[in-house]
Amino acid sequence: MGNTFGKIFTLTTFGESHGEAIGGIIDGCPAGITVDVEKIQKELDRRKPGQSTIVTQRKESDKVQILSGIFEGKTTGTPIGFIIPNQNQKPKDYEHIKDAYRPSHADFTYHKKYQHHDYRGGGRSSARETASRVVGGAFAKQVLQHFFPEMTVQAFVKSIGEITLNKDFSEIDFSLTETNMVRCPDADTAHKMIDYLKKIRKEGDTVGGVISCIITNIPTGWGEPVFDKLHAQLGKAMLSINAVKGFEYGGGFAMCKQKGSEVNDLFVNDNGKIKTKTNYSGGIQGGISNGMPIYFNVGFKPVATLMQSQPAINKNGEEITLQGKGRHDPCVVPRAVPIVEAMAAMVLLDAYLLHKAKNN
Amino acid sequence: MGNTFGKIFTLTTFGESHGEAIGGIIDGCPAGITVDVEKIQKELDRRKPGQSTIVTQRKESDKVQILSGIFEGKTTGTPIGFIIPNQNQKPKDYEHIKDAYRPSHADFTYHKKYQHHDYRGGGRSSARETASRVVGGAFAKQVLQHFFPEMTVQAFVKSIGEITLNKDFSEIDFSLTETNMVRCPDADTAHKMIDYLKKIRKEGDTVGGVISCIITNIPTGWGEPVFDKLHAQLGKAMLSINAVKGFEYGGGFAMCKQKGSEVNDLFVNDNGKIKTKTNYSGGIQGGISNGMPIYFNVGFKPVATLMQSQPAINKNGEEITLQGKGRHDPCVVPRAVPIVEAMAAMVLLDAYLLHKAKNN
Amino acid sequence: MGNTFGKIFTLTTFGESHGEAIGGIIDGCPAGITVDVEKIQKELDRRKPGQSTIVTQRKESDKVQILSGIFEGKTTGTPIGFIIPNQNQKPKDYEHIKDAYRPSHADFTYHKKYQHHDYRGGGRSSARETASRVVGGAFAKQVLQHFFPEMTVQAFVKSIGEITLNKDFSEIDFSLTETNMVRCPDADTAHKMIDYLKKIRKEGDTVGGVISCIITNIPTGWGEPVFDKLHAQLGKAMLSINAVKGFEYGGGFAMCKQKGSEVNDLFVNDNGKIKTKTNYSGGIQGGISNGMPIYFNVGFKPVATLMQSQPAINKNGEEITLQGKGRHDPCVVPRAVPIVEAMAAMVLLDAYLLHKAKNN
Amino acid sequence: MGNTFGKIFTLTTFGESHGEAIGGIIDGCPAGITVDVEKIQKELDRRKPGQSTIVTQRKESDKVQILSGIFEGKTTGTPIGFIIPNQNQKPKDYEHIKDAYRPSHADFTYHKKYQHHDYRGGGRSSARETASRVVGGAFAKQVLQHFFPEMTVQAFVKSIGEITLNKDFSEIDFSLTETNMVRCPDADTAHKMIDYLKKIRKEGDTVGGVISCIITNIPTGWGEPVFDKLHAQLGKAMLSINAVKGFEYGGGFAMCKQKGSEVNDLFVNDNGKIKTKTNYSGGIQGGISNGMPIYFNVGFKPVATLMQSQPAINKNGEEITLQGKGRHDPCVVPRAVPIVEAMAAMVLLDAYLLHKAKNN
Repeated sequence: MGNTFGKIFTLTTFGESHGEAIGGIIDGCPAGITVDVEKIQKELDRRKPGQSTIVTQRKESDKVQILSGIFEGKTTGTPIGFIIPNQNQKPKDYEHIKDAYRPSHADFTYHKKYQHHDYRGGGRSSARETASRVVGGAFAKQVLQHFFPEMTVQAFVKSIGEITLNKDFSEIDFSLTETNMVRCPDADTAHKMIDYLKKIRKEGDTVGGVISCIITNIPTGWGEPVFDKLHAQLGKAMLSINAVKGFEYGGGFAMCKQKGSEVNDLFVNDNGKIKTKTNYSGGIQGGISNGMPIYFNVGFKPVATLMQSQPAINKNGEEITLQGKGRHDPCVVPRAVPIVEAMAAMVLLDAYLLHKAKNN
Repeated sequence: MGNTFGKIFTLTTFGESHGEAIGGIIDGCPAGITVDVEKIQKELDRRKPGQSTIVTQRKESDKVQILSGIFEGKTTGTPIGFIIPNQNQKPKDYEHIKDAYRPSHADFTYHKKYQHHDYRGGGRSSARETASRVVGGAFAKQVLQHFFPEMTVQAFVKSIGEITLNKDFSEIDFSLTETNMVRCPDADTAHKMIDYLKKIRKEGDTVGGVISCIITNIPTGWGEPVFDKLHAQLGKAMLSINAVKGFEYGGGFAMCKQKGSEVNDLFVNDNGKIKTKTNYSGGIQGGISNGMPIYFNVGFKPVATLMQSQPAINKNGEEITLQGKGRHDPCVVPRAVPIVEAMAAMVLLDAYLLHKAKNN
Repeated sequence: MGNTFGKIFTLTTFGESHGEAIGGIIDGCPAGITVDVEKIQKELDRRKPGQSTIVTQRKESDKVQILSGIFEGKTTGTPIGFIIPNQNQKPKDYEHIKDAYRPSHADFTYHKKYQHHDYRGGGRSSARETASRVVGGAFAKQVLQHFFPEMTVQAFVKSIGEITLNKDFSEIDFSLTETNMVRCPDADTAHKMIDYLKKIRKEGDTVGGVISCIITNIPTGWGEPVFDKLHAQLGKAMLSINAVKGFEYGGGFAMCKQKGSEVNDLFVNDNGKIKTKTNYSGGIQGGISNGMPIYFNVGFKPVATLMQSQPAINKNGEEITLQGKGRHDPCVVPRAVPIVEAMAAMVLLDAYLLHKAKNN
Repeated sequence: MGNTFGKIFTLTTFGESHGEAIGGIIDGCPAGITVDVEKIQKELDRRKPGQSTIVTQRKESDKVQILSGIFEGKTTGTPIGFIIPNQNQKPKDYEHIKDAYRPSHADFTYHKKYQHHDYRGGGRSSARETASRVVGGAFAKQVLQHFFPEMTVQAFVKSIGEITLNKDFSEIDFSLTETNMVRCPDADTAHKMIDYLKKIRKEGDTVGGVISCIITNIPTGWGEPVFDKLHAQLGKAMLSINAVKGFEYGGGFAMCKQKGSEVNDLFVNDNGKIKTKTNYSGGIQGGISNGMPIYFNVGFKPVATLMQSQPAINKNGEEITLQGKGRHDPCVVPRAVPIVEAMAAMVLLDAYLLHKAKNN
């Protein structure tokens, strides 16, 4: 249970960090969509380890192999099976933590839940699992693109530690996101973040951050009240990503301190198109998209693996000392940008298909 | 779609604000649980309108009628059908907004999605729907109580506008929550909140707030990685409540600015029981409960209906002016406390049953 | 679990034979469909007890009350809640069987599964539950009618005991189905069946029968391979009806004795429309509708309650003798015709909506 | 949609007949179960092509590769990903039928549903897909074995064409099933069937058949009323297998001609264990297992591919003549025996886990 995401367009994934391969099955993908496999690989490359000096140096090419569901370059409507072989398996690197409950990792809970688990590199609880999400999202993006060429789904790093990009979406030049290692679409802020991360890494420490995502040109009507409101689905999707501690959309938590008269979004008739003057609603009202941009923040905690020694407990309840070694990220957010986009794209596509099922 | 919550223990609801009745069906409830119907009604009374001077004065006794699934005082394992008749239907009160797209309401999106909708008092998008959630949650609480008598699920108002209760959970006396109109377990803060709400109401305005919830004495092992992590399910549950804009658990968004060395939860052996020294993880690691208290914040925006006149647009795209009239809450959080608890209880029970299905 | 049917268009039901009411919630119904409540009641009247001398004389008017989801005569896309009050509750009639495990009833299995169950009149295992299915199906029929005015879903009694209507579908005048008590569209056969049922009833005995159903003018493309093939969904739907022991479609079990060269359905081009010369496929190929009529048989066992004394065992494992008393049907098939149609209509509508979600 | 089976223990599959590989993901498998990979391969070998002279001579070793979910020989509770490479892809063999709608195949319906489909060897509609089911079932069998060592799930060929094994289950020696090519546990009948199949194959024809399955030593209480009755789930499972036209359990269709007094199963107290004297109920009452053996028949139509020339229609609606060539089975049932068992095992395990979730 728990390894399938979505209702119509579904992604089911498998795979451990140091097993033979990870992968997944996409079901419910509409037929006849031209698939650009290069683009899928490009999304994976945005997430893959070793892509820059501020991320883990694990060597994984993360090459996806698509095994079914595509024929003559197009989706056939049948399930798309894919695998991503694990190339840089180093199970022996994990012998020393075999019996450890590492702080703020899932070793303890996996052991308690399953009694028997794969401890190598976090096994299933490793963020390596998110590569399969990126594949699912890359397909979702291409399907959305097919039906709604104007729609955009764009995430970026908003903050790392205390360093924050304080710009309104309208002022952001999204073409800059991929121009730097941290994926912050502002050269100055990016520069500061990179410097900070280098310092953090040198200290053997890690730090948290926030990713923002904005979706534009989405039609009205998507989302299923009452329990499956569009933002509830987005929230669940984001919270399911490793290390995420919070989700807010539109006006978010700041809005909880404000008055209705300050944040009500007044409707206006813009040459026949109904819009809202402000967008505290974040593009969603009553759980349904209203045509305005959807935007939200996703908060990531610091990576739990430190390059410092830490006290821990082993399976026998004995105190041990963990040595910081291995290959890890000082901060998860630069590599998590494509994951946020992937999850958002899958939620949107599923919402669209569910809407389409019942409405014209 | 979207009106069923849960996988094993499920709640399906129906009903509009000004229809004949609202209600629901609970399926998957274990058999043989003694049901205290009074307690269910008491939960509803915590949510009902008219209970104090700072909430809407709509007259609804919110009496639940249970139609099936209970025999000789115990659950039978078959579905529990229930209805809550709408007594204070005043559809005529809504004639004047029949064609209006009220700001920050769901009129526009429901109309766009369904073309044909029940506009009376928000119809299905009204928070009246949440009464059925409270019934579902009241059952879930009793089932949890049956299996885990020590477990507690307690929510309270943490902030209204800028007024915030800044106390650690350990310092809070939860017996105070129900002693005041705002459900803030601190007499001083509650007093300030009430004064503030009276002022806000006099201005015809509304304000947002935050509800905190803490779950104690939960066993380890609940939650289904990877997509159905326990906190992802809690997040979805909370975000599906009307007016919620954000969810954070454990260290939350604040943790995104911190370093790993500051917030890693070190394991300790407390006389044979493994605990964590700190609890930034919020009782959940890798999506699975670790036995420590689970806690989270739920952010609510200000109520959209103001007792002030506001510009709006009607279905023909014409500008109109909305007069503030009707019966509404200046702030949603005091009445939302039992809703947060209800949704949490349903998530927990469902997680328990899913865990029980596969594990010993 | 187990009380919800369907994926997009879903019916969730509740209620025991001798509780206060039975009912259900329909979710996923498209909005804007004009609803004829009289027609829904008419379907219920076809199933209700006491409608003729050959069925149980329990007095139930089976009046459905619709509580939500319809506004100004049309569906709104929100859930449709409904109840059917139980009027003729006679729990005392069941005191004598309180501890009995009646032969071929569900007393024993419900007791073993749930430990605590409602024994009155079979409780949840009573066929009374099927009234809610008829309501769900009546809605589904009207939605199908709205989108596909030419489509027909017609069931009838094909056999009772050894008496069988041996006519090809093409020779049947379906307008005759409702002209006699047994719902067999052939006056002679119906006459024989009625005589036979009167004799059976006089003996205090019961008998089994077969219902056939034919669906015409269904578009191509409905049904989701591989596990949710259209006929697999129809089969599950029919097998979930009380007393059903078998399901076959198209050529059915007879076809298992035949050769490929005898039963292959050759395609022909009928003025631009592709049809099959024969229809052993029963309108479904590879789990997907091919545009030809869908037809299937549903086999019902004899009613288990006899008006004869029978040996039985009670909860203590002691031998007892059951007296035949109460109000029961000598044969279930005449009243089951609208149930078969209802389940078929729900399967078809759900298949249509799922298909529509992904295809143009 | 449609490529996932089950609720807790789920199998999701992918793959086309002539793609690179087929495979699947098993989710919800309990942790800590010792897995015998040889046994899984053995099940696949029972289904694989080329195993005898009366089945298709396509060369496929059907070697399964397990990619995740098993660690140190035991299940970990995380998803089990597996693939079976297609070795004997001969897409060119299908060039000649590229545009054909073969009689009683799914070419026409797949084309109509998806517009774009993989025609090679039936693509996704090929029975090759069932190999993944056998893997899922082999896991399910081992889990059932772990929890219920006495339980047996045994299928066999009951009839081919008119040749039928007319023996009561109690008289059958199941150790004979695998001793002959047709999997009929009776040497004489098997002999006749084999002779008949050789004759049929020589004629370039095909023939249908029936598989029976019996499940013994199953606990009471499994199955979820009302829509997910145990036999309804079994029925759906069987009907989802390629070429199946009918399902009946217990007394089956024959029972529809009988009287209640003839087929009611009287309960008896057998030294403290409650059993039924007869077993027309087929081990299931009210949709719940009653502890007696479950048995059912699955009817398969003749294979549609003939080694004879047949008239057909192509995509342009033009009449063409199909030449019989390729590698096909004269009858599907000998190879379908392990598929029936696999589907039954998955239904049973899922029913057990669902039951376990809510009951003690």
